[in-house]
Amino acid sequence: MKKWAMIGTWRMALEGIQEGLDMLSKGETSGDAVETAIRMTEDNPYYKSVGFGGLPNENCEVELDGAWMDGDTLAVGAVASIKDFANPVSIARRLSKERFNSFMVGKGAEDFAHKEGFERKNMLTPRAKRMWELKVQEIKEKNLLSPYDGHDTVCILGVDNKGSVVSGTSTSGLFMKRSGRVGDSPVSGSGFYADSEIGAAAATGLGEDIMKGCLSYEVVKLMESGLSPQEAAEKAVTDFTRKLRRKYGKAGAISVVALNNKGEYGVGTNVEFSYVAGGEGEEAKVYIANWVDEKVVIELASKEWLDKYEKRIKTPIEELK
Amino acid sequence: MKKWAMIGTWRMALEGIQEGLDMLSKGETSGDAVETAIRMTEDNPYYKSVGFGGLPNENCEVELDGAWMDGDTLAVGAVASIKDFANPVSIARRLSKERFNSFMVGKGAEDFAHKEGFERKNMLTPRAKRMWELKVQEIKEKNLLSPYDGHDTVCILGVDNKGSVVSGTSTSGLFMKRSGRVGDSPVSGSGFYADSEIGAAAATGLGEDIMKGCLSYEVVKLMESGLSPQEAAEKAVTDFTRKLRRKYGKAGAISVVALNNKGEYGVGTNVEFSYVAGGEGEEAKVYIANWVDEKVVIELASKEWLDKYEKRIKTPIEELK
Repeated sequence: MKKWAMIGTWRMALEGIQEGLDMLSKGETSGDAVETAIRMTEDNPYYKSVGFGGLPNENCEVELDGAWMDGDTLAVGAVASIKDFANPVSIARRLSKERFNSFMVGKGAEDFAHKEGFERKNMLTPRAKRMWELKVQEIKEKNLLSPYDGHDTVCILGVDNKGSVVSGTSTSGLFMKRSGRVGDSPVSGSGFYADSEIGAAAATGLGEDIMKGCLSYEVVKLMESGLSPQEAAEKAVTDFTRKLRRKYGKAGAISVVALNNKGEYGVGTNVEFSYVAGGEGEEAKVYIANWVDEKVVIELASKEWLDKYEKRIKTPIEELK
Repeated sequence: MKKWAMIGTWRMALEGIQEGLDMLSKGETSGDAVETAIRMTEDNPYYKSVGFGGLPNENCEVELDGAWMDGDTLAVGAVASIKDFANPVSIARRLSKERFNSFMVGKGAEDFAHKEGFERKNMLTPRAKRMWELKVQEIKEKNLLSPYDGHDTVCILGVDNKGSVVSGTSTSGLFMKRSGRVGDSPVSGSGFYADSEIGAAAATGLGEDIMKGCLSYEVVKLMESGLSPQEAAEKAVTDFTRKLRRKYGKAGAISVVALNNKGEYGVGTNVEFSYVAGGEGEEAKVYIANWVDEKVVIELASKEWLDKYEKRIKTPIEELK
């Protein structure tokens, strides 16, 4: 019996990972635990970059991307640029069972999901709509050249007591993105990767930059070469941030979570990055990672930080600005 | 001054690479040479898996994917699932200049391309339509469970006399694919990768399987570790085919081209694979690679092979069956 564990990006992964760890403790599979954890994040209306309540594109449409990778078989499923489905991660998991047509986008993906009976849902909440209105106003008033911000994907990795490793992602992508824009989250090797012989990784941040470096695959390869998840994730993000600054002139926010098949985990980041991890004998906790002098420094999230987060995401709609 | 060279997938790359090598010999950039070479393949109505004349999806729509990577900056641009534009590779190259929204799909990508003035074109030729009709008939008569075949992407890699490396791809994807299906061709690290400090790679074959292994990035990493393009491409495809058979139970057709920044090139494949290569002091030639006892064996295409190919692609429409 192997040690089971989960890790997920951002504070928003907490409730899902708590539930997922409970499932793993009862001997359920990493596949079911990861899908449940991501669905809970998708369903929560207060998380503004994933699923229901996710921030819309330039046309006030919530466009969703998600992916699934089964580390036992290397099977991949992914959707991009789909609208009005409650749980992109479940559609991605369903597509991972297909030998052909396992990455689908736009209307074709929606038609597939509809025929397969997945739940339709208007994913635009009053809160997200209000944030969009405020951003449109700001763009006009300040003549913003680059209105883009917010690109927090929920990525969840899990390993169960049989050593099966899974990687899943779900996001509404860049706030105010152009209709049809796809980030790294559904892109194999960039947004996610999993191989049960080694481990898994997944990324969040500016997808356009993450795709330039295939970061999730790189992290898994570094773990294969003998690095711990922490060493691998940190090295991949730090080296690539340096390379991108040198070659591209700048580097966006990039964070990566990593988990090996022994239940050990780690993160890399070039910003302030909150994440959630736990496993056998270790309850889910929220950590904050920072990149200080090009080294990752990790601490437990304080009660003050957690309270402030809770208050911020639940700001009454009429007080948003 | 570095040695310039180009390599491209399948016999269909020949005319484009001849033109591209001519451009490189005059000191033009690898970017312009690769774009020209891919556009020539896209424009040719006899090449049935790329651009004009590409085989349609299940609904008789020609849906196109393409990508571009600039190895100097690592900038990536890509489009997927777009209809009725003459040259997806040029849209991808244009998108690679964008810091945000550089991978676009479906209608959003078409709207972008339209506003940017790219040429609209009905990409369905009478020949492709006839092949689709014949396939629909065959599916009905033989009750085919898996109607999918044909997935030959044109991938072209180039390096110029300044050592700038570029990777580009263009395809109509899997014949009879579901509407919205996306393969590896627009997926960074799987369908293509380029880094002028090392070299470039790109893949063709069953995209669903190529995405399971991030093959293009893997090839570039192997070249970085000291392998020649031939060693890297061959090792990546052979090792991954074995791994996929072991873990997934089967492996689709996979071929990869590789080029380093010194102008050396190579290929890996697990099928019969034709390709085109040439460079400074070496005219474009068509080669046939085969995978014999899990080793790649390469020979020049014979006149007989070339004549047969020419005859096959130009079969009169009324004689198709």
